[in-house]
Amino acid sequence: MNNELKDIQNQEDKRGIDIQKVGVNGVEVPLIIERKNEKSQTVSAKARLSVTLPHNYRGTHMSRFIEVLSEYSEKNLLGVDIKGLLYDVKNRLESKCAHVKFEFKYFIKKKAPVSEIEFPVGYDCSFQGDLNGDDYKFILGVKVPITTLCPCSKEISKYSAHNQRTMVKVKVSYKENDIIWIEDLIEKVENCGSSQVYSILKRCDEKYVTETAYENPKFVEDVLRDVICILKNDEKITFYEVEVEAQESIHNHNAWAWQAETK
Amino acid sequence: MNNELKDIQNQEDKRGIDIQKVGVNGVEVPLIIERKNEKSQTVSAKARLSVTLPHNYRGTHMSRFIEVLSEYSEKNLLGVDIKGLLYDVKNRLESKCAHVKFEFKYFIKKKAPVSEIEFPVGYDCSFQGDLNGDDYKFILGVKVPITTLCPCSKEISKYSAHNQRTMVKVKVSYKENDIIWIEDLIEKVENCGSSQVYSILKRCDEKYVTETAYENPKFVEDVLRDVICILKNDEKITFYEVEVEAQESIHNHNAWAWQAETK
Amino acid sequence: MNNELKDIQNQEDKRGIDIQKVGVNGVEVPLIIERKNEKSQTVSAKARLSVTLPHNYRGTHMSRFIEVLSEYSEKNLLGVDIKGLLYDVKNRLESKCAHVKFEFKYFIKKKAPVSEIEFPVGYDCSFQGDLNGDDYKFILGVKVPITTLCPCSKEISKYSAHNQRTMVKVKVSYKENDIIWIEDLIEKVENCGSSQVYSILKRCDEKYVTETAYENPKFVEDVLRDVICILKNDEKITFYEVEVEAQESIHNHNAWAWQAETK
Amino acid sequence: MNNELKDIQNQEDKRGIDIQKVGVNGVEVPLIIERKNEKSQTVSAKARLSVTLPHNYRGTHMSRFIEVLSEYSEKNLLGVDIKGLLYDVKNRLESKCAHVKFEFKYFIKKKAPVSEIEFPVGYDCSFQGDLNGDDYKFILGVKVPITTLCPCSKEISKYSAHNQRTMVKVKVSYKENDIIWIEDLIEKVENCGSSQVYSILKRCDEKYVTETAYENPKFVEDVLRDVICILKNDEKITFYEVEVEAQESIHNHNAWAWQAETK
Repeated sequence: MNNELKDIQNQEDKRGIDIQKVGVNGVEVPLIIERKNEKSQTVSAKARLSVTLPHNYRGTHMSRFIEVLSEYSEKNLLGVDIKGLLYDVKNRLESKCAHVKFEFKYFIKKKAPVSEIEFPVGYDCSFQGDLNGDDYKFILGVKVPITTLCPCSKEISKYSAHNQRTMVKVKVSYKENDIIWIEDLIEKVENCGSSQVYSILKRCDEKYVTETAYENPKFVEDVLRDVICILKNDEKITFYEVEVEAQESIHNHNAWAWQAETK
Repeated sequence: MNNELKDIQNQEDKRGIDIQKVGVNGVEVPLIIERKNEKSQTVSAKARLSVTLPHNYRGTHMSRFIEVLSEYSEKNLLGVDIKGLLYDVKNRLESKCAHVKFEFKYFIKKKAPVSEIEFPVGYDCSFQGDLNGDDYKFILGVKVPITTLCPCSKEISKYSAHNQRTMVKVKVSYKENDIIWIEDLIEKVENCGSSQVYSILKRCDEKYVTETAYENPKFVEDVLRDVICILKNDEKITFYEVEVEAQESIHNHNAWAWQAETK
Repeated sequence: MNNELKDIQNQEDKRGIDIQKVGVNGVEVPLIIERKNEKSQTVSAKARLSVTLPHNYRGTHMSRFIEVLSEYSEKNLLGVDIKGLLYDVKNRLESKCAHVKFEFKYFIKKKAPVSEIEFPVGYDCSFQGDLNGDDYKFILGVKVPITTLCPCSKEISKYSAHNQRTMVKVKVSYKENDIIWIEDLIEKVENCGSSQVYSILKRCDEKYVTETAYENPKFVEDVLRDVICILKNDEKITFYEVEVEAQESIHNHNAWAWQAETK
Repeated sequence: MNNELKDIQNQEDKRGIDIQKVGVNGVEVPLIIERKNEKSQTVSAKARLSVTLPHNYRGTHMSRFIEVLSEYSEKNLLGVDIKGLLYDVKNRLESKCAHVKFEFKYFIKKKAPVSEIEFPVGYDCSFQGDLNGDDYKFILGVKVPITTLCPCSKEISKYSAHNQRTMVKVKVSYKENDIIWIEDLIEKVENCGSSQVYSILKRCDEKYVTETAYENPKFVEDVLRDVICILKNDEKITFYEVEVEAQESIHNHNAWAWQAETK
């Protein structure tokens, strides 16, 4: 039956425009992500897949993206297989370039600093892969909540200082044969705040994080620079982008800082 | 031409189900809102309008909601005209009941506490109206950002205390001939936090809000109860619903409290 | 050390207000959900847990919610254990009532209608439990995408009809000893649209869903009534709430219908 | 009092990192936007303002962004004044570069195609300005809802075709002395769909848009290319970015296409 159905997408197009990216967005799919020291974790991902489309074709074949995704959603250890997925997409779609982005919540168990009670923290993470011809680039993304306590507020006030939940988004690219674990990248970022953020804190822990934050005041500029110092000095890393946004407790808007560098 | 087009909505329905609410949702419309002491303010609203539909009709007439909305979006002083709008909807749609909800950002100029520099704060507000037969109920909603500073953290720590942006959502209903101004309701809620939130703060202001918050620690439970005390004692108010959510600076989740009462 | 730290929450409160709900919101946690015919599925959930707080106590103990959640997030088959979780919360927090809501994406494999190619569809689902004294109520929620094709547009147009993605949200409560599977509830709702929605469709499938939708036009009112007919006639079900929202292809707003009934 | 308060932001920083962007994000502010043929429109905007910060300074002065914004929010005809605002920010913050982005809902009255009944449509728009030294760039952004009807579905089906609401996001930059009106850019994009989208449609209009869409089937690729053809041929335009996303009525994910070019 399929044979009788005309392939409109294959019609010739005369507008003369090569399309840079066309595909599917917002595809929900469970993925199996390799973890550093534990068994793999199944996550709920949102996917975007796209290819280039030469000027002479009217349309791409959307269902083929899902077919390739289907094969890879069954595989273990997908993290290292983004390149394979992109080659499959490129080949199935007969295109020059292929791109993929997965966004997902990733859980890491975290101990409270004093009581050492453990509970997972959910981090928004992303895998992004770009295949241009045979040139492959992978970008790992994490979004890490921390506490920041304002140095200015501490300095000028008789006591206390305003502090708030701050989100640090980091994207890094690294050479193909290297590996940077989500766990390691998050841990480095968490050390750049006034204090870390936890899912469970008993009173002894709450005392600890309150005092730690006060002893360690940071502007968004400080957090940004501290994260950059780490990424700059990591020889594996070839590209980074850092965004720090503090949900100010004294305003209804946020303090914000951003930096990107291709090394 | 309109005459020739069959009215499918008017077809008889045999499933025997009276529909409680059917209409349009997410309609974007500019509205003119009456203010307490200044000229009216034009806001960008999202609207939901609905009616009851008797079991014997297949469908309602969606375009008529927009026609009524069109008339009212031109009027000044819409705040007091929700009831009129609902009667018009009810009549145009030949229904027993009509409901409307407008959600919009409302700006109020606010002075910094010491420097007295002024800048608007944007508050999410809502007007909700329910007309059941001739029984009319109006609900005013405001969402107010404040600062809360944790009493437990203050008590157990050598210095400082964690504090955060906290959102207080309040809905109130009052008798038809009364009026409660958005400005007044927001002001009352802002006084129930550890400190207020401002759009602009110079250093002298930042010192003030930091110290004020520390001198005035509050749990979400405290804020909830303080707001309730005010609403309970306001004789105009016949119904209230209060929700307090603190975006904890030490967690990636929120402390939360909720209460509702029909007096 | 914990012993020395004063328990501010246990301070006496003199405002005389019993709090209806206080707890934690937006807690991210992986949960293990029992499935109908397959092994269990691990999902990324957002949780809200709350209890009542008597007027004489100043605050609740937020960390205990997470402690209870911690135990249950390790268990298999959580679906049936909501009641146990609520009793544990109630006991740990020494409260009269306890409430929980979990929201999560749940994947069900679905075959294309003709080619029978299979790919998961992700559905937003929720488990809600309320324990008032010893009175327990469980509410299952699903959000199901379908296609609706407008009967009016079909009738009045020379050819074609506008159609769109429509979201049907259903909540149901049922007796404690019964069970309603997520899979079964979703399947029933999917049969109430003009056509079902799929993750992957080959050309033969696309022909099928296009023609099926045209042969089966439905207003939001039709979908609402068809879903209600099913829920009304299901003797297990003691309460239902249905919301249908069609993302109209011809408007930038939605058609919307809502109904709730406690049987 | 201000004089006594130490300026921590002015402390010397030794990490040696020039910050590319630091400032405020999510600032809510009413703006007055100049319109093509009517009096100006007051909109509710969200603003991000940032500057560069040299390596030797620890922090920027966040309140000064709001002070500059305050002056400009009172002015009429802000559209043409973005450059002035950026110079003021740059000077007040003593920085090399300044950036601003405003996002707001903008209403344009639109007549139904046959009945000619009029109602506003709300469009998400943005003004973005970048001042690097004395090099100024302005980017206008619009998000335009249209209808797309699938050419493949039409071709292979006995009757009808799936169609859906599709969002077209366009950003354009143009020379400083030129002007491109929001109204004109939106109108051009609306002509690139299978049909336009309206807030109000009577039956005669619904017939018209249904038939028009069927006579004019378009993939996301078609819409993208048609929009690009217009932007390519507009000599005023020096840069464009186009994103088309169709909220497929037969899937729970979207078809998506993207292109950008600096001419």
